[in-house]
Amino acid sequence: MISDKMKAFVNGSSAIRAMFEDGKKMAAIYGAENVYDFSLGNPSVEAPEEVKQAAIEVLNNTSPNVLHGYPNNVGFEDVRLAIANQSNKQHGTSYTENNIVMTTGAAAAINILLKSILNPGDEVIVFAPYFGEYKSYIGNYDGIIVTVSPNTKDFQPNLAELNSKITPRTKAVIINTPNNPTGVIYSAKTLSTLADVLKDRQKEIGHPIYLISDEPYRELFYGDFEIPFVPDFYDNTFIAYSYSKSLCLPGERIGHLTVNSKVDGFDDMISALSCANRISGFVNAPNLWQKVIPKVLDCSVDVSIYKKNRDTLYDILMELGYECVKPDGAFYVFPKALISDDKAFCDAAKEFRLLIVPGSAFGCPGYFRMAYCVSHETIVNSKESLRALKEKFSR
Amino acid sequence: MISDKMKAFVNGSSAIRAMFEDGKKMAAIYGAENVYDFSLGNPSVEAPEEVKQAAIEVLNNTSPNVLHGYPNNVGFEDVRLAIANQSNKQHGTSYTENNIVMTTGAAAAINILLKSILNPGDEVIVFAPYFGEYKSYIGNYDGIIVTVSPNTKDFQPNLAELNSKITPRTKAVIINTPNNPTGVIYSAKTLSTLADVLKDRQKEIGHPIYLISDEPYRELFYGDFEIPFVPDFYDNTFIAYSYSKSLCLPGERIGHLTVNSKVDGFDDMISALSCANRISGFVNAPNLWQKVIPKVLDCSVDVSIYKKNRDTLYDILMELGYECVKPDGAFYVFPKALISDDKAFCDAAKEFRLLIVPGSAFGCPGYFRMAYCVSHETIVNSKESLRALKEKFSR
Repeated sequence: MISDKMKAFVNGSSAIRAMFEDGKKMAAIYGAENVYDFSLGNPSVEAPEEVKQAAIEVLNNTSPNVLHGYPNNVGFEDVRLAIANQSNKQHGTSYTENNIVMTTGAAAAINILLKSILNPGDEVIVFAPYFGEYKSYIGNYDGIIVTVSPNTKDFQPNLAELNSKITPRTKAVIINTPNNPTGVIYSAKTLSTLADVLKDRQKEIGHPIYLISDEPYRELFYGDFEIPFVPDFYDNTFIAYSYSKSLCLPGERIGHLTVNSKVDGFDDMISALSCANRISGFVNAPNLWQKVIPKVLDCSVDVSIYKKNRDTLYDILMELGYECVKPDGAFYVFPKALISDDKAFCDAAKEFRLLIVPGSAFGCPGYFRMAYCVSHETIVNSKESLRALKEKFSR
Repeated sequence: MISDKMKAFVNGSSAIRAMFEDGKKMAAIYGAENVYDFSLGNPSVEAPEEVKQAAIEVLNNTSPNVLHGYPNNVGFEDVRLAIANQSNKQHGTSYTENNIVMTTGAAAAINILLKSILNPGDEVIVFAPYFGEYKSYIGNYDGIIVTVSPNTKDFQPNLAELNSKITPRTKAVIINTPNNPTGVIYSAKTLSTLADVLKDRQKEIGHPIYLISDEPYRELFYGDFEIPFVPDFYDNTFIAYSYSKSLCLPGERIGHLTVNSKVDGFDDMISALSCANRISGFVNAPNLWQKVIPKVLDCSVDVSIYKKNRDTLYDILMELGYECVKPDGAFYVFPKALISDDKAFCDAAKEFRLLIVPGSAFGCPGYFRMAYCVSHETIVNSKESLRALKEKFSR
């Protein structure tokens, strides 16, 4: 009695989540300290203390009916204004509360946007490797996912191929930078060329191509550089943002969609997004967490912990002879599998109590993802398992 | 650039929400105390103090990574178990954590269920007057809403007509008791007859007809009686529950779906619901509120406040000569409009600073809904406006 579409979703369901459940089982058998679970992007760093204090302050100092009652479907005005002002300060935008739609995380932000724009058969382009859930999100609204093949040299997107894949049915392009699963940050040059392609082609096909920039990892980068701001390059940009990673709150489901002022059909878009938020069953982003955000906009997770993990894991992988592009952000590394069948490779890794995710789950077979948002000890202790895995396939 | 489907949703969008915005504008002009806003079911009673204390306790005493990290997509096991146990105590069920899927409110619960079961063109039957959002929820998955006409005598559902509207495409029936917008509680006799019809007809058509019981108002009733427990009457039952009304937390988006143990295809259903929760972008119900629920399961809003409002408003309506069925639950009353055009009637009411919602928004023209989850003063002070409205249409 399950719908046909849902059966397909369940069958093709998240390999990562399945592994998350595997990990819990293995931890029960071998002890958590003997399982090296690199499967899920569940932050290991704790939410900043300020987040807790802000939540308690909001609970203590806000009238319950204001705090817990229905807000506008797009969220509290004061919260949206605070977020707009932060963008103005950081990126020199001139946003107001009207540019911000509060959502139950970036996943909701992308869903309400795709629901608002996709007719059945419309195409959405993604760059492999890509976050596997995009396929479901696009499928939810009967859109067609169109994949640009990976550029395994440096995992910057393959823009020549993008150009060849745009058709009159192209409605949107999704990018994700810092990237899950590669940890690569799209450069200003990449974004500039990407924007040129999209500007040319939307003019040619006669309707906007929306660029959806999925940025839950914006604050997580490990070097002395700036992450380019996508609307600086392309007007028709939406940013799906989440506080899941920057504040270590993935289970609380709080984020927002930034609608750039120069998006084509801005007013209709906001009406559609508000309606989509309501009728999809989100109704509004959870109020308490909305009210917490303005108080912690200047807080962030301690990125140095992830950097240390990145450095240690990358060094181990290099020492053992794995091949991978050094990640500059997020908390993932995406090495090459030692056999072409990445699923068999990740299955074999379980023998060494290593949980790693096949690149196929990201549309990029032959690779695997390790989420290094784990304790530093886990990384250090996983070395012998990573060595054994290497040796198994070097014989 | 808005999708065709979304355009239709926006155009047919919630009359109630539009009125909510009207109300805010009118309050700014006339002063909030001079506007009698009966439009939205936004609880006026405050969340019990225990809720705040429980939230602070959870924040103070739970490790941030456990509290805020990704749980299973169906929710925390301990929370689901506590809710199952409460059902077992109250209703004599034998539920475990496996019967409970935590959701971001009842709206999400209904959406993930409909997503799990509906193929395009499948029919879902509702009884007018019905909560207008059902139309969108069903449309989200390309289902067809089939409406059973209202029984305006006592607003118990018209079960003879139900029988005539079941077809081989019928996948589900939605009921809502205590009812929005009528405040009527479906009797045991109603549920028993309803169950008989569904049992006969699902046998005849050869596949299950699922009964979705939407119960956000379960705790809100004003008399010395029990609200019948729907799974006692019919095996293929799901309960969409929300803490929005029982604990006055509508903006926090916390509820659950109860999947009765005897639902056909139970295991597949749970897999589908878990997947639907994830890919729709909910991912999981907000963690903090999940963790609060077991601590406040025995708490409830002070129902006597709503009862007093119900009594006062009903008495005023009777005294002024309005016609309506006395509501036994929820916080709505659904009187007959004084002209057949209920939209024109509700527009006219604005002249007297009365915000009331046309019955058309609930598939029941010729009536109007008043949400009496307002201050008692608002009800008392609205009397002269209700009188003036009556006189306007009695001339």
